[in-house]
Amino acid sequence: MKTLGIIVEYNPLHNGHVHHWKESLRITGAQHTVAVMSGPFLQRGEPAITDKWSRTEMALAMGVDLVLELPVAYAVQPAEWFARGAVTLLCATGIVDALCFGSESGDIAPLHALARVLATEPAELKAGIAQRLSKGASYPAAYAGAAAELAAEGADGAALAALMQQPNNTLGLHYLIALERLGSTIKPFTVARTGSGYHETVAPADGVIASATAIRRLLLDGGPEAASPYVPATTLEILQREWQAGRAPLHWEAFCQPLLNALITRSPQQLAELHEVTEGLEHRLQQSLYTLPQPSVEALFAAVKTKRYTRTKLQRMCTHILLNHAKVDMIPSELAKGPGYIRVLGFNRTGRELLARMKDTAVLPVWVKPSAGSHSHLDWDTAAAAIHAAGMPRPAIRAMYADYLRPPLMV
Amino acid sequence: MKTLGIIVEYNPLHNGHVHHWKESLRITGAQHTVAVMSGPFLQRGEPAITDKWSRTEMALAMGVDLVLELPVAYAVQPAEWFARGAVTLLCATGIVDALCFGSESGDIAPLHALARVLATEPAELKAGIAQRLSKGASYPAAYAGAAAELAAEGADGAALAALMQQPNNTLGLHYLIALERLGSTIKPFTVARTGSGYHETVAPADGVIASATAIRRLLLDGGPEAASPYVPATTLEILQREWQAGRAPLHWEAFCQPLLNALITRSPQQLAELHEVTEGLEHRLQQSLYTLPQPSVEALFAAVKTKRYTRTKLQRMCTHILLNHAKVDMIPSELAKGPGYIRVLGFNRTGRELLARMKDTAVLPVWVKPSAGSHSHLDWDTAAAAIHAAGMPRPAIRAMYADYLRPPLMV
Repeated sequence: MKTLGIIVEYNPLHNGHVHHWKESLRITGAQHTVAVMSGPFLQRGEPAITDKWSRTEMALAMGVDLVLELPVAYAVQPAEWFARGAVTLLCATGIVDALCFGSESGDIAPLHALARVLATEPAELKAGIAQRLSKGASYPAAYAGAAAELAAEGADGAALAALMQQPNNTLGLHYLIALERLGSTIKPFTVARTGSGYHETVAPADGVIASATAIRRLLLDGGPEAASPYVPATTLEILQREWQAGRAPLHWEAFCQPLLNALITRSPQQLAELHEVTEGLEHRLQQSLYTLPQPSVEALFAAVKTKRYTRTKLQRMCTHILLNHAKVDMIPSELAKGPGYIRVLGFNRTGRELLARMKDTAVLPVWVKPSAGSHSHLDWDTAAAAIHAAGMPRPAIRAMYADYLRPPLMV
Repeated sequence: MKTLGIIVEYNPLHNGHVHHWKESLRITGAQHTVAVMSGPFLQRGEPAITDKWSRTEMALAMGVDLVLELPVAYAVQPAEWFARGAVTLLCATGIVDALCFGSESGDIAPLHALARVLATEPAELKAGIAQRLSKGASYPAAYAGAAAELAAEGADGAALAALMQQPNNTLGLHYLIALERLGSTIKPFTVARTGSGYHETVAPADGVIASATAIRRLLLDGGPEAASPYVPATTLEILQREWQAGRAPLHWEAFCQPLLNALITRSPQQLAELHEVTEGLEHRLQQSLYTLPQPSVEALFAAVKTKRYTRTKLQRMCTHILLNHAKVDMIPSELAKGPGYIRVLGFNRTGRELLARMKDTAVLPVWVKPSAGSHSHLDWDTAAAAIHAAGMPRPAIRAMYADYLRPPLMV
């Protein structure tokens, strides 16, 4: 009996995810699935459109057996630290045999070769990144260029660079690097993503696969029914229930007032103490406020965005400002410690058996209830959940403190 | 030609204020009026129901000649510092002959006698306050009791204590103390308040005078028209315009999300660095969050309020949390420096002549445009105006940055 590990956001879970999961089971030959899922805020610096409990429910409804939470300290980070946090959790369960991720390329070999080189963090990599940054490149572009140059060594550097222009190839590469660094025995696989690309914002009129971005656009414009061709029936039901309860949809504009409050009332020095507020961006943020056509997060991102400061970088930075994440808590030496526990969000009958096995195999404490332990990551997760819930259409204390008040989902 | 000074909030300007102003002119024999007015946040720790520009307009429409802003650093403070800031500004103009304030007693003599004693800050006063605080009294009650005991010295201490149970007597007393301390030649007067008491929340069915509290309740429940019996026609017109423009009404609930954000994401240590967050209230605030029936500011105040921590104390504290006012910036030694400039919000033709005279008489720089100078008080005022405007029903960047974008009102 093999167990598959997957790393997901499910924002929301759609038909493309179902396809990926089934393909992953097929090519790995696994029977069980453990998913590491981001909580209320996501890797690209966005609030999830519904809370983590409803997204856990979608995963369990599809057939995932056990859902674990990726702490926000890793969930809202560049690919390198996102991957490190998620892969560490999968390894720490001690029960995962295979990791399968979606990629644009669908080909594990060149990514794996590159990962083996990059995992050693050669000095040439850092030099190549620094050189590109000094020419005004964004960090992801600088990393991709330097990594491709390094791996090419006479081979096709341009092809590798092109490979790394794709966001899921990049994430996958970092999963592989993390596996290498952790000396893990988990075997990596990749499944080619089908249908709409990651960045496509319009869902196809025919067909059942659309990007999560396009589906969120449909949801925000037309409610759950508008997304029904592209999501499983269970997802649709859950979305409808969340909408009716006033717990969804969430989006950046729902956090406009607290974000602007932080930007207006804090000194530049105070802002610069927060994670990802780097290179004088505190001044750029504050000066841009006066120039906005209207007080909106969208207008702020548009005003501050440059080639160097990508939208994703700005969104992540603003998430850390919203959540008051101190720079000193998220420096590499802190993040390199990895998650300190395994937080369980939900499980089914099989998941319960997996949890029983983990009593012997897990190398981190397994927390089924948050009251089980105390950790700075958990404090940040609890705060992030409360802040996320405060942006709901009809905020409720119960939703804000769900992390304290409710047990994991059991189906 | 004599000039009257008054200290106001005009939240909003109503018939009782017109009565007070006319009586003040009559008993002082003054022809001109200078008003020192609080900006967006008020002495009892509440957001003003409309912005400072519309309230300046109400004052000019009634007949005030020159409106000056009391910086938020003094406007949201206990009576002692509120009075010190406002009286300092009136003195600094060099053109004010008389100060007239409303009081419940209407009798200047006993207040003046008490002020002369208290202005010297005798050691017995501090001891008397400390003793009462240790028995669980609120600061205002402790001050009133200790002051009355001190002033009595064989006379009727109970009568004096009763006098100081009234909020406007207390404010007036502190105006008198400030005049004494500043060695001012401004002559003090008082006018008895008529009609509804300060704390009455229901407007009388007949009559034209209601408390500002009752009028705000009418405004929040029924819009400008509901308050029409109790306000001048010009106030009504201004209120109607502000409502229609989506700039009013403002109230604490409009600041719920940013206030909760600060309480949720900051550490107790960070909260304790803010002004008025004293005696472990940071823990009380954070622990109370989980117990609220719903996420609202009203529910928070109700949960935290005790005999010792009055509603006013809590509201002021939460205003300073919302505005990120550091304790270190508002310690007594900082506040004792007084305002560093005279900020002009509006004037009429006579006010223009008063401003011309102030070129010779003023002992602080007079700023007609905020760009005229730089001062930490002005930074806080600009931020407070932006935060206040972000809580409007339809926030606009122009309203948020009105302090930068518009000149004073000239009528």
